[in-house]
Amino acid sequence: MWSIEDTEFMSRAIKLARRGLYTTRPNPCVGCVISLDDKIIGEGFHIRAGGPHAEVHALAMAKERVGGQIDLKGATAYVTLEPCSHYGRTPPCAEALIKHGISRVVVAVEDPNPQVSGRGIKMLRDAGIEVDVGLLSDEAAQINPGFMKRMESSLPWVTVKLAASLDGKTALSNGESKWITGLESRRDVQRLRARHCALMTGIETVLVDDPSLNVRHGELGLLSQQLDADSLHQPLRVILDSRARLTSTAKLFAITSPILLVSCVDYPQIEKDTWPEHVSGLILAADHEGRVELAALFAHLGKTCNSVLIEAGATLAGSVMSQNHGDELILYQAMKLLGSNGRNLISLPDYIAMADIPTVKLIDERKLGDDTRLTLKIRS
Amino acid sequence: MWSIEDTEFMSRAIKLARRGLYTTRPNPCVGCVISLDDKIIGEGFHIRAGGPHAEVHALAMAKERVGGQIDLKGATAYVTLEPCSHYGRTPPCAEALIKHGISRVVVAVEDPNPQVSGRGIKMLRDAGIEVDVGLLSDEAAQINPGFMKRMESSLPWVTVKLAASLDGKTALSNGESKWITGLESRRDVQRLRARHCALMTGIETVLVDDPSLNVRHGELGLLSQQLDADSLHQPLRVILDSRARLTSTAKLFAITSPILLVSCVDYPQIEKDTWPEHVSGLILAADHEGRVELAALFAHLGKTCNSVLIEAGATLAGSVMSQNHGDELILYQAMKLLGSNGRNLISLPDYIAMADIPTVKLIDERKLGDDTRLTLKIRS
Repeated sequence: MWSIEDTEFMSRAIKLARRGLYTTRPNPCVGCVISLDDKIIGEGFHIRAGGPHAEVHALAMAKERVGGQIDLKGATAYVTLEPCSHYGRTPPCAEALIKHGISRVVVAVEDPNPQVSGRGIKMLRDAGIEVDVGLLSDEAAQINPGFMKRMESSLPWVTVKLAASLDGKTALSNGESKWITGLESRRDVQRLRARHCALMTGIETVLVDDPSLNVRHGELGLLSQQLDADSLHQPLRVILDSRARLTSTAKLFAITSPILLVSCVDYPQIEKDTWPEHVSGLILAADHEGRVELAALFAHLGKTCNSVLIEAGATLAGSVMSQNHGDELILYQAMKLLGSNGRNLISLPDYIAMADIPTVKLIDERKLGDDTRLTLKIRS
Repeated sequence: MWSIEDTEFMSRAIKLARRGLYTTRPNPCVGCVISLDDKIIGEGFHIRAGGPHAEVHALAMAKERVGGQIDLKGATAYVTLEPCSHYGRTPPCAEALIKHGISRVVVAVEDPNPQVSGRGIKMLRDAGIEVDVGLLSDEAAQINPGFMKRMESSLPWVTVKLAASLDGKTALSNGESKWITGLESRRDVQRLRARHCALMTGIETVLVDDPSLNVRHGELGLLSQQLDADSLHQPLRVILDSRARLTSTAKLFAITSPILLVSCVDYPQIEKDTWPEHVSGLILAADHEGRVELAALFAHLGKTCNSVLIEAGATLAGSVMSQNHGDELILYQAMKLLGSNGRNLISLPDYIAMADIPTVKLIDERKLGDDTRLTLKIRS
């Protein structure tokens, strides 16, 4: 069904789509390639929400290449995601493809939103355009795990980030942990934060470490050269503080990107009066252990966030895992041994059989300096 | 100094040497290649202690290739270890090389035994043979880490084998551990045992698991096809039993390969009377925690064993590591999370600073089914 050129051009479109990884959210990353006589005449990707879609960039380039003609008869457009069919902040891309006289459209993945899925394809077909769907669909879907999951389930993609020694310890018994992992791993964590819509941690981590929990442009490594400081999205910082203990002296507050304080009781009014504009509160029910009900929290975050990165201690990370909210586990592993007195990586229920433990599957492994980064899919 | 042919032929000799990995001990693995006019005319490796050395096999093949001539004038011999100069169970190889009229000998590594080092080379040079030393010396030394270390220090090479989940647990809290690692890892452990002269564990492991601690030919995987059951060396089984608690009902006793029971007090005579012939005892001083003094034990084992594999619980493995007896750590890592209630991998002192933890360096990484095997050099 697919020619070698089809595969080649769609691969290129996927590669282009990835360039938006740090800037498009909450929109998905999308790439587009336009070919004529088996040559690429236009390409583009979605850069940021509110800006032109990938198809618009690619059509503009193609039009220029053929001497300003609007009619691109005989051309094929390769799009990683079904072209939109609705008027949003930009006119529908399906309409633009029709208007330019494109003859064939190859789509990797249909729009995951059940409300609009198939409409763009139908609009193209109704206009007499040949549409083929499904080329490199897995690869294309993997660029936008958060967008895909949220459109299908209204829940965000949840990444659990952990860092430990070979014997699964995150710190010495006295809490000393600077540094278990190396500089390259810590920079990678900055890129991981920059890719997620929200960053979640527990109050204990905030009280003990007093972190800023932002993305520091200067620590992005090579990425900082491709991404200027102004294009950098700061993830929403979500702090789980069931008993409303946090005060505005926390370092977090000094950085003006949004903070969501999630508690089970209200903060004292006198405290709330000190909150700067970028801080808001959310009160949710407590679970049977008195902690914030995670299911309710993820349902809330799913309204606006494609993806949530959990950077937390053993308790919260363990709750996310054992309550089956996690999609992916990223483990930075240092080639060190801290010994059994060290602090444990993750708290899980006291399983009595090996069959009961969580199921994870290794899908990627990278070296980062002396450390290893393991990416594992959590299968629930 | 070295030609492309020199490097090629020595690489071949190293490859041949490795074929003896499971059978030569306590002798080292040695390979030999004989070339004439840049072609290999003879090759061989040391198969087992008491049998012919690598040079003898290679000379015999070379002699046959040149029509039975004894004179191999113009030929070069490549040997991974300095040829022996003494009459042992076989006549000295240096003499054989001289007798066959070899013109040049290339040696990768000098004999590590300070008593004999250099003597074989001197004997060859005195006979007018050109001798070049040091080609691929690191690679050649790495075939025999145990032999090299023991000859230099009278201590065995110590490998610490560990197996754990990603969060550094060896079992659930109830002791359940079947199976954390997969079949391929467990087969690899069989090959690891087969390569070591001795296998050491603690009494707790024996009392709890009642293991046989032998090499099971049928579980060697592919190796079983290259190595018949009779050629298989069984490692000396060393059990640390400071308080002399083991009784001869242990499964260990049923297998007739040698067992060394190391205690700090003597076993009751009535118990010793039940010991089969392959069981012997060794009484050593206790350390300040009442455990067998490891330094004394390794000094004892160094008299006969090139290498000791530690397959033990967190306590013994930790003592070996923290007392700086370990040379290499082999960690089988299962892509699983057991949670903080699980059993810890290794007990180490309660360090107060990151600078105090043991230093290990990753030197090899392999996939074994779903598991990862990490090999780490312990740097003390």
